Amino acid sequence: MLIVMKPEATDEQVEDVLKVIRELGFKPHPMPGATRTAIGITGNQGAIDPTHFEILPGVGEAIRVSKPYKLVGRDLKHDDTVVAVGEADIGGRDPAIIAGPCAVESLEQTMEIAEIVASCGVKFFRGGAFKPRTSPYSFQGLGEEGLKILARVRDRFGLKIVTEVLDTETADMVEQYADVLQIGARNMQNFSLLRRVGTSRKPVMLKRGMSATLEEFLLAAEYIMAEGNYNVILCERGVRTFADHTRNTLDLSVVPAVQNRSHLPIIVDPSHGTGKRHKVIPLARAAIAVGADGIMVEVHNHPERALSDGPQALLPEMFVQLVEEVHAIHSVVSGQRSVVSR
Amino acid sequence: MLIVMKPEATDEQVEDVLKVIRELGFKPHPMPGATRTAIGITGNQGAIDPTHFEILPGVGEAIRVSKPYKLVGRDLKHDDTVVAVGEADIGGRDPAIIAGPCAVESLEQTMEIAEIVASCGVKFFRGGAFKPRTSPYSFQGLGEEGLKILARVRDRFGLKIVTEVLDTETADMVEQYADVLQIGARNMQNFSLLRRVGTSRKPVMLKRGMSATLEEFLLAAEYIMAEGNYNVILCERGVRTFADHTRNTLDLSVVPAVQNRSHLPIIVDPSHGTGKRHKVIPLARAAIAVGADGIMVEVHNHPERALSDGPQALLPEMFVQLVEEVHAIHSVVSGQRSVVSR
Amino acid sequence: MLIVMKPEATDEQVEDVLKVIRELGFKPHPMPGATRTAIGITGNQGAIDPTHFEILPGVGEAIRVSKPYKLVGRDLKHDDTVVAVGEADIGGRDPAIIAGPCAVESLEQTMEIAEIVASCGVKFFRGGAFKPRTSPYSFQGLGEEGLKILARVRDRFGLKIVTEVLDTETADMVEQYADVLQIGARNMQNFSLLRRVGTSRKPVMLKRGMSATLEEFLLAAEYIMAEGNYNVILCERGVRTFADHTRNTLDLSVVPAVQNRSHLPIIVDPSHGTGKRHKVIPLARAAIAVGADGIMVEVHNHPERALSDGPQALLPEMFVQLVEEVHAIHSVVSGQRSVVSR
Amino acid sequence: MLIVMKPEATDEQVEDVLKVIRELGFKPHPMPGATRTAIGITGNQGAIDPTHFEILPGVGEAIRVSKPYKLVGRDLKHDDTVVAVGEADIGGRDPAIIAGPCAVESLEQTMEIAEIVASCGVKFFRGGAFKPRTSPYSFQGLGEEGLKILARVRDRFGLKIVTEVLDTETADMVEQYADVLQIGARNMQNFSLLRRVGTSRKPVMLKRGMSATLEEFLLAAEYIMAEGNYNVILCERGVRTFADHTRNTLDLSVVPAVQNRSHLPIIVDPSHGTGKRHKVIPLARAAIAVGADGIMVEVHNHPERALSDGPQALLPEMFVQLVEEVHAIHSVVSGQRSVVSR
Repeated sequence: MLIVMKPEATDEQVEDVLKVIRELGFKPHPMPGATRTAIGITGNQGAIDPTHFEILPGVGEAIRVSKPYKLVGRDLKHDDTVVAVGEADIGGRDPAIIAGPCAVESLEQTMEIAEIVASCGVKFFRGGAFKPRTSPYSFQGLGEEGLKILARVRDRFGLKIVTEVLDTETADMVEQYADVLQIGARNMQNFSLLRRVGTSRKPVMLKRGMSATLEEFLLAAEYIMAEGNYNVILCERGVRTFADHTRNTLDLSVVPAVQNRSHLPIIVDPSHGTGKRHKVIPLARAAIAVGADGIMVEVHNHPERALSDGPQALLPEMFVQLVEEVHAIHSVVSGQRSVVSR
Repeated sequence: MLIVMKPEATDEQVEDVLKVIRELGFKPHPMPGATRTAIGITGNQGAIDPTHFEILPGVGEAIRVSKPYKLVGRDLKHDDTVVAVGEADIGGRDPAIIAGPCAVESLEQTMEIAEIVASCGVKFFRGGAFKPRTSPYSFQGLGEEGLKILARVRDRFGLKIVTEVLDTETADMVEQYADVLQIGARNMQNFSLLRRVGTSRKPVMLKRGMSATLEEFLLAAEYIMAEGNYNVILCERGVRTFADHTRNTLDLSVVPAVQNRSHLPIIVDPSHGTGKRHKVIPLARAAIAVGADGIMVEVHNHPERALSDGPQALLPEMFVQLVEEVHAIHSVVSGQRSVVSR
Repeated sequence: MLIVMKPEATDEQVEDVLKVIRELGFKPHPMPGATRTAIGITGNQGAIDPTHFEILPGVGEAIRVSKPYKLVGRDLKHDDTVVAVGEADIGGRDPAIIAGPCAVESLEQTMEIAEIVASCGVKFFRGGAFKPRTSPYSFQGLGEEGLKILARVRDRFGLKIVTEVLDTETADMVEQYADVLQIGARNMQNFSLLRRVGTSRKPVMLKRGMSATLEEFLLAAEYIMAEGNYNVILCERGVRTFADHTRNTLDLSVVPAVQNRSHLPIIVDPSHGTGKRHKVIPLARAAIAVGADGIMVEVHNHPERALSDGPQALLPEMFVQLVEEVHAIHSVVSGQRSVVSR
Repeated sequence: MLIVMKPEATDEQVEDVLKVIRELGFKPHPMPGATRTAIGITGNQGAIDPTHFEILPGVGEAIRVSKPYKLVGRDLKHDDTVVAVGEADIGGRDPAIIAGPCAVESLEQTMEIAEIVASCGVKFFRGGAFKPRTSPYSFQGLGEEGLKILARVRDRFGLKIVTEVLDTETADMVEQYADVLQIGARNMQNFSLLRRVGTSRKPVMLKRGMSATLEEFLLAAEYIMAEGNYNVILCERGVRTFADHTRNTLDLSVVPAVQNRSHLPIIVDPSHGTGKRHKVIPLARAAIAVGADGIMVEVHNHPERALSDGPQALLPEMFVQLVEEVHAIHSVVSGQRSVVSR
């Protein structure tokens, strides 16, 4: 159910509606807009009688929402969401670039890469302190030590830190250090974890699961928003298909599909999506050309080691070139995008 | 690394080897066999020098294990694992049948279905108290109230209870009531949860993720075993494909593939795999024919409601027929299976 | 459009209806049933006015058929189709077993394998004379020489010959020698070839394309039937998925799905579906258990060469065992099948 | 086998090598380069002894080629192939845009759309006269009448005609009218058809099959080239996956993957790949950004009918905008592409 207030409705009238919703045992989600306020209602099992609300002063209309997602959809909030992260943002005028190593390995490595990233005018730094690994015997990340290194990157370079929250046990700790909480593809339907970051005041970057449909992806975001955290950034990172020339098949068509249904920003991670360096730049360019709000890429500082260590990480000079191309393509795409792709 | 003791090695010699492994900072996994004991080693990042162990008294050989999984594989333990659940078992001579409602909805519903299940000579009862739901607005299960109902089913009918553990927060609670802890497909790579049930003394039934490769599936089981819980039952429940005539595509070929690589038992869930009742019986029969150690199916007590409620749940008379067919086909398959399919 | 004649309609009345259909520029497909005759109409672009026909003497009703397929569906012909191949049949009481080498390589090899096949009481022999090969540099089959060898197998052992038609150019030649014309997975949507075999008087075995949906599969059969050849046998042989433990993922759930919608018989080819010998027997058993009308498997006569040559071909003793198991499982499944699975 | 002549080898020496290859029963494929000539050998079943050739005058070296494709690969021909179509080309400096209706429906419709296309400075016109249709009851195209309409488009507007060859029966006819012969996705492994267009002197545009791996795609091109037609253009048009928000999942990562292995140009068809108009422009931009040599899109002249008729066809004003964006993005991408993406 979605309550749309009249343009002239007073703040008191909005408050009264919120109160009635709470008294009925539901949860109100007020969303102030430029000309009028909309209020989403969640927590109801079945349909709610709209007449409960239509009789209240200041209410324009009460609309039944049939789609399985509500807060995520454009019905409830038509305008694009811009997620502010301090003075930076994702979903705004400029494309967001998030770059850094796959995993935080040491202070030295991290600082070196951060310097490259910052020198390109990029605002977001990525790096995993807790790593989800397919094998129990693989390196699982430095844990809190890694988070402390990331905090030093923020202090020194002013970069905003994007890092993964692996589980509810370590969520408090990650929340202390991160600027944006990343939920990995394997956890896209870890509903307890989604609810936990939904109670956080930090923005959440939610990666699409390896075989998630668009609806499942949006409903995972809905889990977060239903707890009150509306600062959700979606991230396409490739899906599982039969194709064997690439680790995952990057599904760029999901970008206009998300934009059609949802107001949330969406970025693309071509590093995990392709698994091979020579594909990362072309697909990063394509991500911007398709209309994504940004990209997340892995950068490596040691070309000679990178040959074996990080076949998907960009070398510094590649990254410099990519940043230029991203801005050039974005300037072609912006302007027209809102007209054409939605 | 795998240490194979000599047939004549004494218990003291085995203990000495375990001690050396622990002193090196690794974790030993002793696995006594009919004629000799094997000891798996985990916790090492890279290769271990075999000469550490080959010089110890009673050691036959020290073998480097190159596959990413160790405890799960047949290298370490050749013979099939039979998981005992009280007096019942999975992976033993008889096919295991696990049946019950999708979710525990009420005491009455649950008891009625349990009576049908028990009357067929079936030993395992399934039913969800905590339900993973794609939408935050869908019914999420009765929680502890549901677990208590399941406990009453066990008390009344002697059925062993298989129920899902959704997260680490509720794991303690579920562990108190369940006989077998089920890990759902969406949590197959929820590594914190896998580690948690790895410390449990209850057997774990691990469902294959919707887009998990065989190796990822086995490594998820390895996570559980690496914590010391060797009673893992694998469960195929269908994978995501382009095919639109069925909710998931049941991949029965994974059964002989698992049996080829692993000693763990594997069962099949054709109810979630197909999503439609008229396919459940044929595919349950096929699961037994392909050599699975059992099946898990949903049974519904109210045919008239089932039409809308549970399009994948079997009606009682269908279930009775299925149990008969399972036993008939199993008797054709057993005997030959060990020769042919492995 | 489907015209259902009254039970008491005379042959003359049926003829009159056929005449009217032809005069309207459409194609009639009379299908005599036990109690009444139905007449399918194809060749129309849009809807036909049923009143054209309802006024004719002997017509019971004229039904608009909304599904994209007509002749294939159970609306037009409710009873299962049994395809007769001389004195043998597919879709009848006994499971059909089709066995033989992948390709006809020489007279000696083919005769040796045919002897094994015939000695098990099997009635159908497979073997490719024209082989579709992914690479232009691979062995493409013996051509007409291979067909002549197959004809000698029929003469000597009385086996019915199932062999592939690769293209319209060689269709006449293959038709002279074969008892059943096989259309391979890669040609499932080679519409010119489908139309060509639709004009043949030989039965056609149509393999499902590697990424064909159920509807596309049935419509491919419809292409054949629309030309007048109603003796079509469907064959599931595995689909393309992300799973990498098997060459193709055998989709056994398509068997009950086909049986639900179509009267045509369906068999399963687990040799191409799995690509590995140790999976062929389990999946062949599963195919019968799921309710398929038969199986098609590859048999190899030289175990010592087979190790490298034909990793998916069964050795003779495996085949003997498989035939026994197929009959044992079929006897469990039959009887109940019509009640349960449809 | 690949023979690389010395830089100073004379034409006579090259001729001698070709002669020897033919005498051995193989087929030579001479490929003159800037500094030296390479000669591919096909037609051999197994390995050829390189000493046959290394002793001949003018031969630099004889290299065994282990990849399953030869003529398609960069081993044999390092430089990018530019396919000339009269004065236009594909794979050259400018991005190729191929636009037009899905099917040729009438002279009027086709001319109207051609005028829009030509007025944007676009050089290639697409339109189907023979249409592959999933259902035998769907419109199958105007046939030769459609081809004649396409010829009039060429005469009037100077546009090069790209149209589909459906089968060997109609190949002669299509060849008379077309400038580029299109092989559709369903025919990617119709080997008889591939061989037929391999003997043509017209360039061939080969679409990737719906579930074709990269190797299968390249080997299909190899079939065409092995007959002597080296003017092959590859076309990505989307693959089958579980994703249900789009008809096919456009796999843009195949573009850099193809460019890595093959010298052939590759274009992208985002109209069939996405099936929805609001995705076509974003994905067409992404195709150019990823480095494709061109795009193929559907354009519709009647917005009011297009709403129901052609949900994937671009309206004229959309097309005008797209052409501008394609050129703007291409100018960003070119220059750097050869350095970065290969």
